[in-house]
Amino acid sequence: MYLENINSPEDVKRLSIENLNILADEIRHALLTKLSAHGGHIGPNLGMVEATIALHYVFNSPVDKIVYDVSHQSYAHKMLTGRKDAFLHAEEYDEVTGYTNPRESKHDFFTIGHTSTSVSLACGLAKARDLKGDRENIIAVIGDGSLSGGEAYEGLSNAGETGTNLIVVVNDNEMSIAENHGGLYQNLKALRDSDGQAPCNFFKSLGLDYIYVKNGNDITALIHAFTRVKNVSRPVVVHIHTLKGKGYTPAETYKERYHWGMPFNLETGQPLSDGGNTEDYCNLTGKFLLEQMQKDPTVVAISSGTPAVIGFNPERRQQAGKQFVDVGIAEEHAVALASGIAANGGRPVYGVYSTFIQRCYDQLSQDLCINRNPAVISVFLGGSAGMNDETHLGFFDIPLISNIPNIVYLAPTCKEEYFAMLEWGIKQTTHPVAVRVPGPVVIESGETFDSDYSELNRYKITCQGERVAIIALGNFYPLGESVRRKLQEATGVQATLINPRYITGLDKQMLEDLKANHQLVITLEDGVLDGGFGEKIARYYGDSEMKVKNYGLKKEFADRFVLEELLKENHLTDTQITNEIREIIDKKQD
Amino acid sequence: MYLENINSPEDVKRLSIENLNILADEIRHALLTKLSAHGGHIGPNLGMVEATIALHYVFNSPVDKIVYDVSHQSYAHKMLTGRKDAFLHAEEYDEVTGYTNPRESKHDFFTIGHTSTSVSLACGLAKARDLKGDRENIIAVIGDGSLSGGEAYEGLSNAGETGTNLIVVVNDNEMSIAENHGGLYQNLKALRDSDGQAPCNFFKSLGLDYIYVKNGNDITALIHAFTRVKNVSRPVVVHIHTLKGKGYTPAETYKERYHWGMPFNLETGQPLSDGGNTEDYCNLTGKFLLEQMQKDPTVVAISSGTPAVIGFNPERRQQAGKQFVDVGIAEEHAVALASGIAANGGRPVYGVYSTFIQRCYDQLSQDLCINRNPAVISVFLGGSAGMNDETHLGFFDIPLISNIPNIVYLAPTCKEEYFAMLEWGIKQTTHPVAVRVPGPVVIESGETFDSDYSELNRYKITCQGERVAIIALGNFYPLGESVRRKLQEATGVQATLINPRYITGLDKQMLEDLKANHQLVITLEDGVLDGGFGEKIARYYGDSEMKVKNYGLKKEFADRFVLEELLKENHLTDTQITNEIREIIDKKQD
Repeated sequence: MYLENINSPEDVKRLSIENLNILADEIRHALLTKLSAHGGHIGPNLGMVEATIALHYVFNSPVDKIVYDVSHQSYAHKMLTGRKDAFLHAEEYDEVTGYTNPRESKHDFFTIGHTSTSVSLACGLAKARDLKGDRENIIAVIGDGSLSGGEAYEGLSNAGETGTNLIVVVNDNEMSIAENHGGLYQNLKALRDSDGQAPCNFFKSLGLDYIYVKNGNDITALIHAFTRVKNVSRPVVVHIHTLKGKGYTPAETYKERYHWGMPFNLETGQPLSDGGNTEDYCNLTGKFLLEQMQKDPTVVAISSGTPAVIGFNPERRQQAGKQFVDVGIAEEHAVALASGIAANGGRPVYGVYSTFIQRCYDQLSQDLCINRNPAVISVFLGGSAGMNDETHLGFFDIPLISNIPNIVYLAPTCKEEYFAMLEWGIKQTTHPVAVRVPGPVVIESGETFDSDYSELNRYKITCQGERVAIIALGNFYPLGESVRRKLQEATGVQATLINPRYITGLDKQMLEDLKANHQLVITLEDGVLDGGFGEKIARYYGDSEMKVKNYGLKKEFADRFVLEELLKENHLTDTQITNEIREIIDKKQD
Repeated sequence: MYLENINSPEDVKRLSIENLNILADEIRHALLTKLSAHGGHIGPNLGMVEATIALHYVFNSPVDKIVYDVSHQSYAHKMLTGRKDAFLHAEEYDEVTGYTNPRESKHDFFTIGHTSTSVSLACGLAKARDLKGDRENIIAVIGDGSLSGGEAYEGLSNAGETGTNLIVVVNDNEMSIAENHGGLYQNLKALRDSDGQAPCNFFKSLGLDYIYVKNGNDITALIHAFTRVKNVSRPVVVHIHTLKGKGYTPAETYKERYHWGMPFNLETGQPLSDGGNTEDYCNLTGKFLLEQMQKDPTVVAISSGTPAVIGFNPERRQQAGKQFVDVGIAEEHAVALASGIAANGGRPVYGVYSTFIQRCYDQLSQDLCINRNPAVISVFLGGSAGMNDETHLGFFDIPLISNIPNIVYLAPTCKEEYFAMLEWGIKQTTHPVAVRVPGPVVIESGETFDSDYSELNRYKITCQGERVAIIALGNFYPLGESVRRKLQEATGVQATLINPRYITGLDKQMLEDLKANHQLVITLEDGVLDGGFGEKIARYYGDSEMKVKNYGLKKEFADRFVLEELLKENHLTDTQITNEIREIIDKKQD
């Protein structure tokens, strides 16, 4: 086995072409063995095996610097740069993250988890090199899907002006997570169809040189191409045509399903778990929106390259027809598009993960909120129980969205309330509305909720009590119920429990009324405390006798945390909160 | 005079070509008369006179819908759509905003002040049209400068896929605010040089049809082109070559200086005011950075299309050479570039207006802060005294930046402290650092400030007092001084005055110590209260006996406000604050 003896790129350079091909098979085998047992990004990594070998064969990492866009195709790179054991030995699988990471290896230059950033970051490395008078190669590796993001374009256009060494490897596997969207992809097709000769060339139009590699899974061809561009003195694109899922028939066939996956049976390709057959908010939302579309032809669902998040699998996309739009990985466009649709009388619903809504703050503010257009945004996986990589946290959407004027950001506590709020958002024509999907687990309360939320910032007292009021936001409402119960058991105190519903404003009347027979207000929110919901309550009561204690998450990029531990560290278990409430009210009585 | 009789686009359609040309002269005369007396966007509007006339001659606004990117070229449109009086009569000059605005006219569809958004917004209008089965033309008008922004690209690529009517008028005047930057502009040149025939065509590469109008200031040619594309069933770009500043020699000659300007002498072109010959932070920063560059060849200043903000006029740009980079209007790229430069040992300083830093939240978070790269960002015009259009507010940078982990956001109180902090930011290699430039007026305190800020979150007590502590952030520090003085005069209470310096963290030791002999903490910040600095102090003291009162701005898109009135409405005069402090401490004594 060659892979076992690869400890650095130097070891790759020593192999013959024939043995490099054997190495590719070994890498692919290791990838499939690990991914089928562990989950991860499947298709993009399988397609990039040969190119990664060729890159390390030709260039001298880490002096030459390779930046992998979004890192979804960086696993083979990890194997060749001293981290093979994390792919070969099951007990070491978790020794590496799913993303490039400078803390892991000197061959990684950035921690990257969002798309479309590699060219700009590489431009930075190149600029510093030029200022220092160094001469290494700087290489950005970017997938065709990532090209749909505006930052990639800004990077390419600026690279095109630089006039010094920068090599952009475009890994064109003809797919984003789902199929690609945008006029650009017709140009990539024209380039592929003409063996790179089409005179109209997106990359050349931005001032970059260009070469095409028809078989991007052929090590010899790749080595030849990379050798041609090594030490070039101008920015150049090497457009390589690869096969997503290469070498594993199910992944080659079902490219969208095998982009990323949970553990699966390597022989059959079937997932090992059916997810418990439980309901999930993505699927429920897709179903709900299709129903809305049937009632109203102006309802339109929007996704930015992740149609699954809003429940639009290929079947639903077909059913929705013109009423579903995937804009590619272009969150900025998605928000502006939604604003434009709403301005002209349509009813857009944009579904997006919490971690990606932060890619369009300015569009939320300028294109949407200044214009008060009634578009709706469903924010998925907001909170601590969503994704747990430092690059994909769902902690920050509350400070991001809720401090923008004019938007109404709602926090439903259960399935019934979510759909009541979503339906109101679609019907009303007065406000931009965002809804924080209360996942990840679907809780059915069986209760009926208001169908009208147009009287803004009216919180709801769900249990009237005294002394202590617990304002429990969105998916932390069940935590509030639990704290209330524990407090009563421990002290007899019957706390008031409040579902605030509105993240974006205070129910001043209710807060004022609480003063009469409460001494302590507790806020619970599943997001960073800094800039969040609870601090607004603390500000409100700042010059009064009311004590306030805010619970939420510390401002940090927590990485690959265990949820229970994170909650404990942040004093977010029901027992911790109950004990701290007791301390405060006991002290008060002294 | 024809212009006086133009009350709607219908009146334009009645004129002969000859008279349309006279109308163009009249519009240009009115523009120059108003702008020389009132200030505003000069060059872009002068160049677009003929195209605007032709648009309204050919299309049927408001059924056909025209969206003007960034609105800098929308003045002639305003004149032709019922708002001529605001250009003809000095007493009505302020009746219109500098931007398109649906509250002003049914011919405006969005309030727009940031660039690169028009194509995406127009895509939204078109999508709603298609869903409703309507058939009007949707037209986006975008300048060549605005094309450098990623959102414009996302919009174009998505438009290229739409397959229905969308007309993108690219107003190519060969300039952004300053000269254009990015490889794209070589392609625009190739298209101009080939009369639109160059086979490599950026717009076509994104799937759009394309026609070129060589003389974009020739009404007949423009009418011909727009007539050709009216009612097309596919997205098409009409690339028109116009002359920025057309018809006014100083503006044609000095395109950057006459992009936007304060009132000027129409005959000589000289500004009416020399700005009082006062120092300004832009100029001082440019001077300072040039000095740093001379000491260290890896120091590099970055601008995103507004080199003047960081003091890099054409002369300084030349002096800086490779150590100055203008990336075009590409804030996302600017931040990622800075991160990349810092990662490879360079010392980047990105200078940007507060209102535009919000265009790169995700890049701040992901490209920069997760990676903890020591790039420096100088944030200009943060606060209420910067720009006062609702699209250009400087109120939101504190919630935007300060709630991101790992960044150190500093708030200097005067010139000396600003440069001490900036210099430290450039020297240190541990943190991403942002500095909130304490303008707009330059205050010289004559004091010496720390040169080292590496021990984070250490606030400074500048006057030790008791009972009341005033934490006065950045450019509101003088307000804190004033409140302290007034309070002492009125009550004899000698308050403690604190310069917190760090926006991004609490000095918990100091806050704890204040409990010993203070009963009230006041926070002053020149930004929205929601998600801001003061709320963190309120949270800290929430469960203690300390009273807290936060002063700052209400969360709203205030528009064209008079600063004094805005401050008063927000209880931000020294008298108001002093009186409110008295109320609280008197009550406490009861």
